[in-house]
Order: sequence, then C-alpha cells, then structure tokens
Amino acid sequence: MVDIQNSRDKRNIPINCVGIKNIRYPIVVQDRKNQRQPTVADVSLYVNLPHHYRGTHMSRLVEVLNEFKGEVSYKNLDRILLRMKERLNAEKSHLEFSFPYFLTKKAPVTLWESLMSYDCIIAATYDKHLSITTTVRIPVHTLCPCSKEISDFSAHNQRGYVTITVEMIKFVWIEDLITIAEESASCPLYSLLKREDEKYITEQAYKNPKFVEDVVREVAARLEKLSYLRFFSVEAENMESIHNHSAYAMIRRDFKVDRP
Amino acid sequence: MVDIQNSRDKRNIPINCVGIKNIRYPIVVQDRKNQRQPTVADVSLYVNLPHHYRGTHMSRLVEVLNEFKGEVSYKNLDRILLRMKERLNAEKSHLEFSFPYFLTKKAPVTLWESLMSYDCIIAATYDKHLSITTTVRIPVHTLCPCSKEISDFSAHNQRGYVTITVEMIKFVWIEDLITIAEESASCPLYSLLKREDEKYITEQAYKNPKFVEDVVREVAARLEKLSYLRFFSVEAENMESIHNHSAYAMIRRDFKVDRP
Amino acid sequence: MVDIQNSRDKRNIPINCVGIKNIRYPIVVQDRKNQRQPTVADVSLYVNLPHHYRGTHMSRLVEVLNEFKGEVSYKNLDRILLRMKERLNAEKSHLEFSFPYFLTKKAPVTLWESLMSYDCIIAATYDKHLSITTTVRIPVHTLCPCSKEISDFSAHNQRGYVTITVEMIKFVWIEDLITIAEESASCPLYSLLKREDEKYITEQAYKNPKFVEDVVREVAARLEKLSYLRFFSVEAENMESIHNHSAYAMIRRDFKVDRP
Amino acid sequence: MVDIQNSRDKRNIPINCVGIKNIRYPIVVQDRKNQRQPTVADVSLYVNLPHHYRGTHMSRLVEVLNEFKGEVSYKNLDRILLRMKERLNAEKSHLEFSFPYFLTKKAPVTLWESLMSYDCIIAATYDKHLSITTTVRIPVHTLCPCSKEISDFSAHNQRGYVTITVEMIKFVWIEDLITIAEESASCPLYSLLKREDEKYITEQAYKNPKFVEDVVREVAARLEKLSYLRFFSVEAENMESIHNHSAYAMIRRDFKVDRP
Repeated sequence: MVDIQNSRDKRNIPINCVGIKNIRYPIVVQDRKNQRQPTVADVSLYVNLPHHYRGTHMSRLVEVLNEFKGEVSYKNLDRILLRMKERLNAEKSHLEFSFPYFLTKKAPVTLWESLMSYDCIIAATYDKHLSITTTVRIPVHTLCPCSKEISDFSAHNQRGYVTITVEMIKFVWIEDLITIAEESASCPLYSLLKREDEKYITEQAYKNPKFVEDVVREVAARLEKLSYLRFFSVEAENMESIHNHSAYAMIRRDFKVDRP
Repeated sequence: MVDIQNSRDKRNIPINCVGIKNIRYPIVVQDRKNQRQPTVADVSLYVNLPHHYRGTHMSRLVEVLNEFKGEVSYKNLDRILLRMKERLNAEKSHLEFSFPYFLTKKAPVTLWESLMSYDCIIAATYDKHLSITTTVRIPVHTLCPCSKEISDFSAHNQRGYVTITVEMIKFVWIEDLITIAEESASCPLYSLLKREDEKYITEQAYKNPKFVEDVVREVAARLEKLSYLRFFSVEAENMESIHNHSAYAMIRRDFKVDRP
Repeated sequence: MVDIQNSRDKRNIPINCVGIKNIRYPIVVQDRKNQRQPTVADVSLYVNLPHHYRGTHMSRLVEVLNEFKGEVSYKNLDRILLRMKERLNAEKSHLEFSFPYFLTKKAPVTLWESLMSYDCIIAATYDKHLSITTTVRIPVHTLCPCSKEISDFSAHNQRGYVTITVEMIKFVWIEDLITIAEESASCPLYSLLKREDEKYITEQAYKNPKFVEDVVREVAARLEKLSYLRFFSVEAENMESIHNHSAYAMIRRDFKVDRP
Repeated sequence: MVDIQNSRDKRNIPINCVGIKNIRYPIVVQDRKNQRQPTVADVSLYVNLPHHYRGTHMSRLVEVLNEFKGEVSYKNLDRILLRMKERLNAEKSHLEFSFPYFLTKKAPVTLWESLMSYDCIIAATYDKHLSITTTVRIPVHTLCPCSKEISDFSAHNQRGYVTITVEMIKFVWIEDLITIAEESASCPLYSLLKREDEKYITEQAYKNPKFVEDVVREVAARLEKLSYLRFFSVEAENMESIHNHSAYAMIRRDFKVDRP
C-alpha cells in the first residue's frame, strides 16, 4: 500500500509538534508509600516533523504506549521518549500524562484515614536533553484576612486551588509539592472529618488567614530554596465564597534565565 | 434528488426525540427591568418521528430557529414549537435554550451596582398541550451551622449552588426564583463589594448559618405556596471549603400526582 | 459536642436525597476477561432524610465507602446500599459511580490489539427493593446515508456517541452493551489501526451507512429482545462533520409500564 | 476601616499577576459587517503587585470593567489597561476576554444564510508597550488523504478544530483568520445546508483531502506572509472518526526572535 505520510512535502515548513492527543490509558505511577499506584491518564504523544515529510505515522505512537504498558516512572520517561524518536525518525519527542493521584491522609484530631485525590500532569520533552515538568493542583482552605480584620466576628473562607509547576534537574515527589501547598494555605482539605476535626480546622483557619497573594508568596519562598529546580510557577485560585468569580495570583521564576 | 429521510422504515419503531443538539445561537430574552436582554444560548430542537419514516429533516429545524431570529419569550415559545410540528410533520416538538442571564444587583451597604450572571434553561414541549419548564442555577453563600456551634469562634463557609426547576401553569420571572434561592441561603453573592459590604456579609452569614438541607427546605417551603406550579425540584450543592467534594440535597414535588 | 444535625426540624419537609457528590475514588470493577479491573470513579452517595431531622451525617457516607475499599461489583452493591441505610438510619439509599472502563480490542484486519475506554455509570437505589441502572457511552463511526445517496462519490462521516441506559432484573455485562452499540453503527472505533485496517473500516462504513435514527432503532430492536430489562433508553449523537452542532436521536422504553 | 491589602509585606517577593478570574460579563465586540456585535464573555483582569504590598484591591478591577460597560474594541483596550494600571497603582496590567463570535455564512450552493459561532480570546498586556494577542478556534471538515488513497472508495472524514493565535502590530479581523483556516481545510462547516449543499461539500472534501499536518502548514504559509505579525501559532486537532482520540499538529513562529 502507498505510504502517503512518507511522501515528499514541498511547502518547506517544519512542524513543531504532531501526534495523538487525549487518548485515555490506564497507567501505574510511582507512589512514595505504596511504591506503585494504578490510575487512569489522558495521554498525548508528539514528535517534530521535518519539513520534507508530508505526515507522521501516528499509529506508531500508540504502539510505543502499548509497549510500555502504562508504566510511568521518572526512570522510564526517557526510555519512552527515546523510543518515540526512534520509531518516528524524529529529532524531538514530547509526552503528557494527566491523571488523578491519590494520597491517604489522616484527619488532624481523630487521625481517621481517608483518600484525597490531586490532579497531576507529567510533561516531558527529549530534544538534545531530557526535561521533565510536573504540575500538581492541590485543593486547599483559605480564610480572608481582610474579612477577619474588618468584621466583629467570623470571616469568609472558601475552597481554593494551588497549582504548582516545576521543572527539575533531579526527582521531586508529588507528595512534597502537596505538602508545600497545604502548609502555605489557611488549612489543608480532607475527605473524612469528624466533629472534633471540623472544630480544629475551623479554628485553625481563623488563626491563619491567607490571601491568594499570601499563598503564592509562601509557596514561592519554599520553592526558591530547592536548588534543583530549573523553573517553577505557582498559581492560587480562590473560588470566592462571596463572589461568583475567582481571586487569582501567580508567581513564576525561570532559573534558566535567573541563575543559569 | 432522492429524499432518503422520507423513505419508508420497516423496523416499526417510533423515535421519541430526533433533531439538532447544542447549536449556539444569539438570543434575546425577557428582562423584568430592561424588557429585552441579548445573550447567547446553546439550543436543542427535537421532534418525534413516527415508526414509518426513516429520518427527520434536521435542516428545517435550523430554518425554524432562523425564522424567529432568536426571540425567546414566553409569548412565542408556543409559536416556535407549533412551527416545528408543522415543518417536520410531527405530533410532538421539544426545545431547550441554555443561557446566562444577567441581573444588576446592589451591594448591601454601599449600594454600588454590579452585574451577576445566572445559568438558565428554558425547556418546552408541545404534545397535545404546551408545557414549559424553567431551570435557574443561583450561586449563594452558605455557612455551616455545625461548624459554628462546635467551634469557639468562626465557622467554615463556601460558595454553593441552588438549582431550581419549575413547571408552570402561568408565567414566573427568573428574577423571582433568584430571590427565593438567595433568601434561603446564608447570604447572596455579588460581583462588586467594598469593605463595608464585605463586613456586612461576613457577619450576616454568621448570624444565618445554613446546611444544604436547610436551603432546600426553605426554598421548597416557598415554592409550595406558589399555587400555579405543576412540578418543582430544588437542589443545593455546597463546594465544601473543608472537603474536595460537594455536600448535596434535593427535594422534588410533582403536583400532577400530588394535587391533580 | 452538640449534634446539630440530629436536632429536631419543625418545617415538616422530608428531603428526597442528601449526601456527598463527586468524591473521586479508586475502584475495582468486574471485568469479563480479566475478572477485576482497577479504575477511578466519581462517586455520589445519598440517603433520604425524614422530615423531623435537621441534617444527615455526611462523614458516615465516606466511612461506608472506605469500608468497602472501592470494590464495586453487582454482588456487593446491595451490601453497600444496605450499610448506608443502616449507618444513616435511612429508609432509602442511592449511589452513583462514574468511571472509564477499558477493553482490549483487535483491529479488524491485522488483529493488532489496543485498549479502548468507555464512560460508564452504575447507579443503584435501595428503597424497598434494589434496582440497578447501568449507562455506557460508546464512541462509534457513522456514515451519512443521505450524503452517500446524493453524492457522485464519498459520503460525510464522523465520530458519534451511543449512550445506552438499562435497568435490569438480572446482570448484564458492559461488554455486551458495547457490542450492541458497535454493531448498530457504521463501524466500531479502535485506538490502533494499521493501513490495512483503515482501508477495511473506510470501505466497511461506506457499505453500511447509518443515520442517528437508524442507530437508535437498531439498538432498540436488540434491547427489546432482552426479556430481563425493566427499562432502557438509547441515545445517538453525531458530532456532525459538516456542522458544528450534533445530530441527535433517542428512544426510551419503560417495561414497568409497558409489560408490568 | 483597616486596609489590610495596603499593609507592608516583608517577604520581598513580587507577584507577576493578581486579580479576578472568570467573571462573566455581557460585552460588545467589533463586527466587520454589522459594526457592533453583542455577546457574552468570560473576563479575567490582572495586574502585577510589587514586593512591598501585601495585597491588591480586586474590587477596583470590577469597577474598571463597569466603567467601560463591556465595550471591547481594539480602540479601547489600551484605555482599559491604562485605567487598570492607574486604579491599582500597577506597572503592568493584563486582560483576557473569551467569547463566542457569530458570523453569517452562506451555504455553498443554495446560498441560504445561517449563523456560525467561533470561540475567540482577546488577551492584551500593557507593560511598557501594549501587546494584543487574538485567538480564534475554527471548526472545519477534514478528509484523510491516506484513507482516500488506500481505499477502493470513500475516505474517513471528521470535524476538526483549527486554533490560530496571533500577536499583531496592526489590527487583524477575526473574519480574516476564519477565512484562512477554512480555506486550509478540506471544507468549511455551516449551520444550515440543504441537499444540494451537502452533495457539494461531500464531493468537494473528497477532492481536497487534508491531514492535520497539511492544515497547519497551509495556515502557517499564509500567516507567514502577513508582515505585521509578531508571533503566531496554529494548531489543528481532528476529532478522528475512526479513533476515540485526536490527531494533532502545531506550528509556532516567534518573529520577535526570528525577524526582530
């Protein structure tokens, strides 16, 4: 059969990224406590396409995914990316896995255990070198410092989301990014709380009010200390309980520019 | 050209609903204060299909939509539905318009004005008679009575959504359903609040704690008094500020069964 | 500590449904080929609330979920629901699990294997009796019979989604509902196809054109033969390749009314 | 009342972006044919925050939005952004409006008119200079060249989306970007087509097969010729009719680097 994709292209325009987007796939990710955690990912796999080829062979990307049977660890990301380059004759390969990651958490007073889920994205590119970017979205509790200060009692509070993206030289655990975000907010969230825990969280958050500005600054201050980061961004978004829109703040640092 | 849709079907199976789904269309809706409000809707238009026809003529549904140029009022819903029946030779027609509806609201203390938007769905069916169902989703502020009671100070609170669906004999204003929901929660939401307003809302909500159970009961108690309703449901969903899941409650009453 | 939820409510209004909505949880579902399949679900758990109680105890619903550790099979749905009734002192309990379900499929010519995912919802209610409703959304290929007939060559085709919901007396495999939908469309979808397979599918679909009306009728004709169904609905939605809206058709049968 | 936001911050960390996210607002945009088009937008408004302030005054951003009453044209974007800087004492301001834009299109043979909607984003930043970025997402029809070549008859085709983002020195009409995308695909989409039109489109697309790779290259070749662009990216995503995932391609050019 004719291989149309392989035919010569005369428009002379290279393509940055071409491949398959949003294929859902069961994967297994590294878990600090349990070693391996099965979950479900949305996967995108791309390569570059030189100017002289008309098309890429997308089915080979699915074949590479099948070859690795969904094992996603920092150890084999480079093998997947190198295999993509090899199978597609590409100079550059890129992948993205988006998935929920589960963590067992203990309620603050009763210590009852429950599972919390966090949306994660692992994105990796192999150009000349490998670079890996990890994104985690952490739901938190935030209590408004202004509302507390100006009101005779109480303060409005809400669920917020802290999104941390880091590009690393060495490995960083998702669990550590979650801890940084939770400790920078008024209080963490839990799936299971008994009355004693609810009392604790209510009072704790009131003692510890935070704007979105405070949250991103405290996360940024901690991330700045991690010498092995090449880039980070931190966003905080409050689903304001007194508005129907969000309060938002973002800090980004690119150490490839700032401390090369 | 051959009219395949018009050909005879021998499977002997009538189709309840067939048509076009989710076409986006600029519409104009009735507005109590300003008479007419331009907005943008997702529109679905369906008819029934008798067992002996193979297909319906979907392009005619778009033609009917164009004929009425997006004027959606309680006065012309029946004309649109009758026109659908006529153009498609159908015994039954059904339409759905989903759209944001804007309302000018005054902040509680400063009285500064701002716009709030509410997601609405108008669904109407013309079988032998016309029946119209209106759904409004109203964002509100809720403060937890349990958290207030057990804590030495403060209480967790959050944004919640109250969704009211009513089937009516006579006309009801979207504005009235919004008022019912807002008065049944701990406090309404606003787009623009100055510090005086924020203090008021913080304190007001603390004096007026509400579970999702309280919210649906208070909305239901008010809707029960509207003698011209044939059906209602009310849902309350709190985007819990101490959990990453929602608290939810729902009450439904079908007066077609209960008070025929 | 005071139990506010347990306090007496004087509004005299029972609540149909109250509980937790959209908690994400890793689950294990039954798999015809591999016995057990790990996946990730959005879970909602509700009970009714009699008129004399002010609130339900939502944390107990999470406790029940933890007790069963995400094992979801037709065998233990009744145990989960009975446990919910018991822990919450309720007369009625209801649960919903929404999750992707993976199936290994062979390409039609090369027989190369790949995974396809299908969105599923298992909803179950225990009132006096247990009733279980299963929903599966199956992506398919549909080729337009009208376009084929009126054009000198080719025909527009597209991805469509068939959504089947069944309420059963006895157990039905998700796999069987998928087969019924795929055989009623112009062609099934696959994650991995080589050129030989692509040729086969292209030609096969052209020989087998289907309107959304045809798809729902063929699915309905097959479901009607399953004597153990108490209810079914089938929807077909084409993401039309010549429009930016969907073509849609739906058939529903309630055998509780039709063949009681 | 105390102004907490205005208090001194000692963490010494400036914030890149802070403000309100996703407030829904009725706006009026420029329309080449009808001058002004009312639509509904999701609006985000941000400013930078110097290291020495604790918080920004978010309500002032809503006040600025109200001042301009939703008039969004290339002429007043700079006035909105300057006003934001002024009201918030900021060195930098940024806004984003996401909205559906409607265009009247004529069917290719019958010339019947109907409305198509296109998702647009206008994003603008005022740092030392003003820069405006426009994004338009255009739904198109694509027919697979490989499927056509290898099959004895027909070819699989589907709805695809072309997303063009441009940063401009001078004004560009949304209408022109739509034309570029539609002419680079196998065929445009329409809301209303009669049988003669459907025949035309079916045959036209078959004569004009396009991979996602072809689509992005043809759009890129046209955008390259627009000398007043400072940056562009073009993405093509096919909702593959034989797979349940997308085929994707992207080309990006930054003339600030390439032709400074």
